[in-house]
Amino acid sequence: MTRRELVENIRTKKSFLCIGLDSDIDKIPKHLLSFPDPVFEFNKQIIDSTHDLCVAYKINTAFYEARGLKGWESLQKTFEYIPKNIFTIADAKRGDIGNTSAMYAQAFFDKAKSGFDFDAITVAPYMGEDSVAPFLHYKNKWVILLALTSNKGAEDFQLDLRHKTKDARPLYEEVIQKSRQWGNESSMMYVIGATRPEMFSEIRKIIPDHFLLVPGVGAQGGSVKEVAKHGMNKEVGLLVNVSRQIIFASNEKDFAEKARKEALSLQKEMSSHLEKLK
Amino acid sequence: MTRRELVENIRTKKSFLCIGLDSDIDKIPKHLLSFPDPVFEFNKQIIDSTHDLCVAYKINTAFYEARGLKGWESLQKTFEYIPKNIFTIADAKRGDIGNTSAMYAQAFFDKAKSGFDFDAITVAPYMGEDSVAPFLHYKNKWVILLALTSNKGAEDFQLDLRHKTKDARPLYEEVIQKSRQWGNESSMMYVIGATRPEMFSEIRKIIPDHFLLVPGVGAQGGSVKEVAKHGMNKEVGLLVNVSRQIIFASNEKDFAEKARKEALSLQKEMSSHLEKLK
Repeated sequence: MTRRELVENIRTKKSFLCIGLDSDIDKIPKHLLSFPDPVFEFNKQIIDSTHDLCVAYKINTAFYEARGLKGWESLQKTFEYIPKNIFTIADAKRGDIGNTSAMYAQAFFDKAKSGFDFDAITVAPYMGEDSVAPFLHYKNKWVILLALTSNKGAEDFQLDLRHKTKDARPLYEEVIQKSRQWGNESSMMYVIGATRPEMFSEIRKIIPDHFLLVPGVGAQGGSVKEVAKHGMNKEVGLLVNVSRQIIFASNEKDFAEKARKEALSLQKEMSSHLEKLK
Repeated sequence: MTRRELVENIRTKKSFLCIGLDSDIDKIPKHLLSFPDPVFEFNKQIIDSTHDLCVAYKINTAFYEARGLKGWESLQKTFEYIPKNIFTIADAKRGDIGNTSAMYAQAFFDKAKSGFDFDAITVAPYMGEDSVAPFLHYKNKWVILLALTSNKGAEDFQLDLRHKTKDARPLYEEVIQKSRQWGNESSMMYVIGATRPEMFSEIRKIIPDHFLLVPGVGAQGGSVKEVAKHGMNKEVGLLVNVSRQIIFASNEKDFAEKARKEALSLQKEMSSHLEKLK
């Protein structure tokens, strides 16, 4: 999907909501366990009830790999079921030496080879440029590079160096500064967690135009309001991901209905923030 | 597998060779393509002809994921085929927030859930302690943390900071210093590329006792001699991985035989380095 199409979708749907399908088989409603593929059935009903309210679905591959071959099958069926006009993110956090990253790119972008052609994949930056470049060879596909993640562990390395020497930039800033030369605003996004909203202004100085994928709203404590206030740019530039708060809003038979209610509430809030852009 | 068992295997086999099954379907001998699962057939013959010469097999998950569901099936069959007394490494380079890393740990360590119980998995450190901890909850399983990788891109972030300020340690050293408190020499190893042998002495000052998984010998240019000279400790402390140089030694019908020849030559060299330990 091109940047232009993504921005148009956001404007049409008045939403920059990304729904995370972290579909843990131990957390889905029990009545689904009698279906041949409970996780797919869960995702199908979630997608049916939310697809008009969000512009992206993010599939967290870990929750599928955790079930081995069966999980990979649920992943395949879920991917196929997502409407084609919705941006799809493989939240896979891959990254390896060049010839191996080329294989990961094939795994998530080359449908003829692997069965998948996600619009985007999350990539870990630790191994540097040649670990990221192979993903950028695919036209209209996106790398979403980890920069400042939403978890406690972000303090260990991403933020750490600011405490050590006054001249050193923190690692996450180094990652953004260096990597923005590898692609551009139409091929790269960055993961910036919602749990540290005060950082968005600094980040927007370095990358005013890039899209940011923002996890950490909901279960992890971040808020849409703060993210919109500090992170939005003139073409929106935000995909805010919410997973558990939506998909596990209920674990009874009304789960899809309750998920819609949560998604609708988030979409309405986003709509009000988008009004300010006009 | 425990550290003690691993060290015993190395001493018995007189080898610290790890063979990387980067089994790219486009590079395996053409006559195998008529088998129902060509990649499994390739791996099976490689394993048959080399298992007495190596102490570990490293499965690079990218090469399997690149083929989607079929690839995951080849991975499953290959894993099952590896003799149980050989150390198995899922070279998956995973890492995510805590609840997601717990799912990746299940994917590679919990056979009842996923079908796999590798001895070890490679993990990317960028997201910090809570992204690594869930893998350490499994008894006698190992985290192999990326520290200084063998590729050019290692210069982008892992080595970068040494050029900036004289006080700052390079990132890879920060990673080792901090992470060695998360586990111990019986639960953690580090990836240190063979392409920068001059770094091993510095690294051994910080982690004298840990095992290092060393990629980059062969196709990438590193040498066993240099690695052994600078990296070996009193309990060996090295697993040297070789992939392409062994598995693609020939792409004719004699591929398994030629692979054995390469592996044997490496094992002999390793044996001579091990002699010096006595």
